[in-house]
Amino acid sequence: MSSPLITLTTDFGLTDVYVGVMKGVIAQVNPELSVIDLNHAIPPQNIALASFQLGNAYPYFSANTVHVVVVDPGVGSSRRAIAFQTDAGFFVGPDNGVFSSALQTAHTVTAVELNQPQYWRTGNPSATFHGRDIFAPVAAHLATGFPLVAMGAALDPQQLVQLNHIPPQQSEQWVMGTIQAIDYFGNLITNIPAAAIPSDWTVKIGEHLVPEGTTYGSVLPGQAVSLVGSHGWLEVAVNGGNAQAQLQSQVGDRILMLITN
Amino acid sequence: MSSPLITLTTDFGLTDVYVGVMKGVIAQVNPELSVIDLNHAIPPQNIALASFQLGNAYPYFSANTVHVVVVDPGVGSSRRAIAFQTDAGFFVGPDNGVFSSALQTAHTVTAVELNQPQYWRTGNPSATFHGRDIFAPVAAHLATGFPLVAMGAALDPQQLVQLNHIPPQQSEQWVMGTIQAIDYFGNLITNIPAAAIPSDWTVKIGEHLVPEGTTYGSVLPGQAVSLVGSHGWLEVAVNGGNAQAQLQSQVGDRILMLITN
Amino acid sequence: MSSPLITLTTDFGLTDVYVGVMKGVIAQVNPELSVIDLNHAIPPQNIALASFQLGNAYPYFSANTVHVVVVDPGVGSSRRAIAFQTDAGFFVGPDNGVFSSALQTAHTVTAVELNQPQYWRTGNPSATFHGRDIFAPVAAHLATGFPLVAMGAALDPQQLVQLNHIPPQQSEQWVMGTIQAIDYFGNLITNIPAAAIPSDWTVKIGEHLVPEGTTYGSVLPGQAVSLVGSHGWLEVAVNGGNAQAQLQSQVGDRILMLITN
Repeated sequence: MSSPLITLTTDFGLTDVYVGVMKGVIAQVNPELSVIDLNHAIPPQNIALASFQLGNAYPYFSANTVHVVVVDPGVGSSRRAIAFQTDAGFFVGPDNGVFSSALQTAHTVTAVELNQPQYWRTGNPSATFHGRDIFAPVAAHLATGFPLVAMGAALDPQQLVQLNHIPPQQSEQWVMGTIQAIDYFGNLITNIPAAAIPSDWTVKIGEHLVPEGTTYGSVLPGQAVSLVGSHGWLEVAVNGGNAQAQLQSQVGDRILMLITN
Repeated sequence: MSSPLITLTTDFGLTDVYVGVMKGVIAQVNPELSVIDLNHAIPPQNIALASFQLGNAYPYFSANTVHVVVVDPGVGSSRRAIAFQTDAGFFVGPDNGVFSSALQTAHTVTAVELNQPQYWRTGNPSATFHGRDIFAPVAAHLATGFPLVAMGAALDPQQLVQLNHIPPQQSEQWVMGTIQAIDYFGNLITNIPAAAIPSDWTVKIGEHLVPEGTTYGSVLPGQAVSLVGSHGWLEVAVNGGNAQAQLQSQVGDRILMLITN
Repeated sequence: MSSPLITLTTDFGLTDVYVGVMKGVIAQVNPELSVIDLNHAIPPQNIALASFQLGNAYPYFSANTVHVVVVDPGVGSSRRAIAFQTDAGFFVGPDNGVFSSALQTAHTVTAVELNQPQYWRTGNPSATFHGRDIFAPVAAHLATGFPLVAMGAALDPQQLVQLNHIPPQQSEQWVMGTIQAIDYFGNLITNIPAAAIPSDWTVKIGEHLVPEGTTYGSVLPGQAVSLVGSHGWLEVAVNGGNAQAQLQSQVGDRILMLITN
């Protein structure tokens, strides 16, 4: 049997010890567990980007992995602390929308509101750091094999908070979407999924017409190209360059895909 | 028995291979050891912040953990290389004050000056990178179970270097402290411990009066709040915002806590 | 027998999930493998710096370690995907020069062009992310013990792409080199190896004369010093400061070492 993993996605950055402390708490529950950092550079309180990034990443992990997200501006307030199991992994964190993408793409089997302190860190949980005091130890217990249903009160998965999702609009001649994220390379990642992409197309972004391609090298160095990116979304990149800077684009900008086949 | 961990705290940043190389050296001593990054973004040579961050983090690890700190501007000079055992963990690094917080809060049992090269990396140690050549292999041997006393000459724990620590001043009406660190979220972390905090208070910082609360959500979005932070210090935060930017504060600034109960 | 490690060197940064996803893919092949991050902050597409950093790091790992590099601007084009075994470790990545330093300093035994999809991630590999779909799973299979020769077609190691390497020039009175990298502390790392360094010298960089030393503390705080750095290259540093800023230097600048013994 494979050893279960825990992944961490937070807005903690890497200049404090918050992430390391969560790993210490996990190791105190079970020192045999492995922890993988997915991303700690989510901009503070950016729930939508946390959801997007986790949604892109969890499919590459086995179904016994426990994914913890701590982007939690409402910590200590009335927002619920939750855990749920899907056909593609376990998820632990605040019920504030960070799991929207996962909930839309995986099949949720069981969900609970965390209310059993025997699975938490000993002592009163801090009002401002449930990542350390509730989510990390719950994840460690789940990864160790303790049953999800013992950790909280059953919730209807339909009632978990999900962000409003505006899908791309589509006609026979075009698909209209938006830039939902820009990665470290400056690649513009749209909300247009591979399934909505025709055989032949041209992208219009601002005043720029961007030809289709299959790799960054489909165009000359310094030229923009649109292609299906590695996570399965229509993407605009510049060969050897930075599309965000070159096309002066930002998250939320419109992208028009003109169907040419 | 739990597998021992090693934690790393350095000012190496994440743009060089120095941290990875230390992990390679540890793995060559014992590939079964697990290493957790506490923080590699200590500003270069900032011994005080290294001490503060380690002091906040080590209590979340088990007592057989080995904490390595490499913030070491005096490497190769006459500053001692040390290791010591406390009731709450082992510590390895330069004797320059980086362990001040740990020494003040844990009970030190045994301390040595590292002088036994058989526990170091083979070959002459570099004059500029004891982290790789001395501290990492010593930590790996300690975590593997080799005895601390074999690794160096006994030191009186009282003689280890400690930074001057200016505690908050206190009267019946107020507590006067300073900002000792600002975290990634812009939260202002003072040197006033939870034990010194009364039932009811108001914080004065510059011209701003900041009400007490228990969570960031105790005030309206965009408003400042003072609360006991997750590491047990009085903290000033802005709900959904950045207190450092909003209050134009910096490390070392005065904080006055007016007791209102 | 020691557990094999995998190291990762990429230009992915730490603001996306690309690195975490590679670790998920590795864990799906073999959850017992350990992965060490060498560096994910290689500037995008900077093949020379990736080669330099890997060349400095791999000697600190055991010979059964698998080093993966994904700095891969030509992904999806005709550049080959390769793996090779040396007396000092395995290497997996694009054949674009990222392994130049390793090829120059380790003895290569066997090299293959990766063309056996049964060792890749299931499904068609993405045209833009071979790190996830080819290099990570190949590395995981190698670290697990699958034979290199089964994974591709034999290549002549002499035919692997290597960057042009301009060695320092040398006379009896001087050695003329360049700054090949600047580290996080602002230390200027030249291309002059320890073996080319005489007993006594002075460095001239721009208009500055920099004395020799053995540690940063060989000069007064704020003064520049030239010494043999921890990776074995002549280096210029400022005691307690930043040589890059103080000497206004950049990668590629000339360094003249005047021999004074």
